[in-house]
Amino acid sequence: MTKQYQLTGLGNAIVDVIAKADDAFLAAHAITKGAMNLIDLERARLLYDAIGPATEVSGGSAGNTMAGFASFGGKGAYLGKVADDQLGRIFAHDMQAGGVHFATPPLKDGPETARCMIVVTPDAQRSMNTYLGACVEFGEADVDEALIADSAIIYLEGYLFDKDTAKKAYRKATRAAHAAGNKVSLTLSDSFCVERHRADFLDLIANETDVLFANEAEILALYQTTNFNDAIASIRGRCDIAVVTRSEKGSVIVTEKETFEIGIQPVDKVVDTTGAGDQYAAGFLFGLASGYDYAQCGALGALAAAEVISHVGPRPEVSLATLAQQKLGLKVAA
Amino acid sequence: MTKQYQLTGLGNAIVDVIAKADDAFLAAHAITKGAMNLIDLERARLLYDAIGPATEVSGGSAGNTMAGFASFGGKGAYLGKVADDQLGRIFAHDMQAGGVHFATPPLKDGPETARCMIVVTPDAQRSMNTYLGACVEFGEADVDEALIADSAIIYLEGYLFDKDTAKKAYRKATRAAHAAGNKVSLTLSDSFCVERHRADFLDLIANETDVLFANEAEILALYQTTNFNDAIASIRGRCDIAVVTRSEKGSVIVTEKETFEIGIQPVDKVVDTTGAGDQYAAGFLFGLASGYDYAQCGALGALAAAEVISHVGPRPEVSLATLAQQKLGLKVAA
Repeated sequence: MTKQYQLTGLGNAIVDVIAKADDAFLAAHAITKGAMNLIDLERARLLYDAIGPATEVSGGSAGNTMAGFASFGGKGAYLGKVADDQLGRIFAHDMQAGGVHFATPPLKDGPETARCMIVVTPDAQRSMNTYLGACVEFGEADVDEALIADSAIIYLEGYLFDKDTAKKAYRKATRAAHAAGNKVSLTLSDSFCVERHRADFLDLIANETDVLFANEAEILALYQTTNFNDAIASIRGRCDIAVVTRSEKGSVIVTEKETFEIGIQPVDKVVDTTGAGDQYAAGFLFGLASGYDYAQCGALGALAAAEVISHVGPRPEVSLATLAQQKLGLKVAA
Repeated sequence: MTKQYQLTGLGNAIVDVIAKADDAFLAAHAITKGAMNLIDLERARLLYDAIGPATEVSGGSAGNTMAGFASFGGKGAYLGKVADDQLGRIFAHDMQAGGVHFATPPLKDGPETARCMIVVTPDAQRSMNTYLGACVEFGEADVDEALIADSAIIYLEGYLFDKDTAKKAYRKATRAAHAAGNKVSLTLSDSFCVERHRADFLDLIANETDVLFANEAEILALYQTTNFNDAIASIRGRCDIAVVTRSEKGSVIVTEKETFEIGIQPVDKVVDTTGAGDQYAAGFLFGLASGYDYAQCGALGALAAAEVISHVGPRPEVSLATLAQQKLGLKVAA
């Protein structure tokens, strides 16, 4: 039986506030470079006063992935919590306008829609400062079990583990997915997030995850090692597929018995690395949902990552379906 | 006596909502291409439901000009009305973070902050759909006469003429400027805006304008002619300086006795023409305020316009002060 959705993402529904600054700005404001720094409302205000003119775009890791997935022509849905405010309406518009089903009711009378101040330095690295706001309220009641049962794969972002209510929602979602015979994929999100939730992640990977996404720093953090091969050996067989991205070194797909090394898709100039991992996951999962082999899934991931790092912002600016046809010769449904 | 501000802009305080679409979208939604289309709340909602994923950036014609002026290193201020909401706070942040003084109190308990849905077509043309919202409430009480007296030049956008309250505010501002011995500059903004307010503009130019900005379509509309030379002959001597921009044909500076033709600054690729006129005015006025000759003022205008059309969005993404030094060899205060 064909499911209504190929992929449903669950994540922190966030609007990005993107500004350029130099490394001295990061140092002056004690922002950990390349990481996702959680901040409270007071610090959010302080940092916003300090950063330069900004651009607002819908973001959120799994939200970005779903936008990319839809851009490939995939049928997707999204679960996440915004507030009933202007930024929340922007987030909802951008999801729906991109072709992603998004119907989680907005939060009323609580904190504002979450925002992430992303500082992009001249080396194209992004350093994130997230005020979770309304995200905190994403909970079990927001997990639409019928929708999850009707989605061939669900995709969870590790960031949601920063709040207990969301953690419970995760468990409910993974149970609902597996009960319906569907697959569960997870991204570790951030090496500091891994540090905060290592035991939870190890448990989730061993017991509830079919497809794992991680970058090099995250997989090393997970296994508390500095040796990449050791980390790969540790993850092998823990879930059906582990996909580890390594920036300019490409990516590695690890199954119990096989390893695939995937090259990068070259870009003229790396402008802003925001969304690289999210878009890689979008391409890979689109390939998986469409029945492509692992090497092709990896190539689709690399393609989507290359597109997003060539411009400012975390979501594709062109049709990834068209790009897949032009660059990889893959005919995908647009 | 040196004034505290070199330039104060008055205009519609607007957040831009930028999306890409093709010409068929414009046709299907009866959007006049290349123009500023005024829309009501109902149509704003309808169009927002129809457009694809968007990017939000602070805009507004005079707001863009002030952002560019500050990017050159100019000391500027801005008067305009936002609501006390998230988009209003974004607009205020972006002005202040760019170094522009902005202290007009936000509107409470009225319509939301104005927004302009800008549809960018593959030919890089922008078609604007503006819901004025809180802008409507910009009035005489918002005209800070002390600030205007302390500003060597004021800059008014023609768009404000669409509302009577704002029109009164204009008159108050021009009177305050001239009473303090300061200069008044005006942009005609849009050829359809000229059609709506021709008599008012002709009066304002003859009696209260020192420096006029217009593009080719606007100056032709003003004098109801299709002959560019006739239009130039008509404007000559009506104000101290008339500056007419002609897209890829460059610009013409017209004084009572002289005419200067200014070439364009070449760009690799025109991506989005939004803000081209606003940034030209920023460069020209920065030159004027800094004591450069007219040819240099025009070159600074062309430089700022070239920067802004090479990317999405109406405000500079790099320091125009640095660009002026690199491309024109002009050492400006950064």
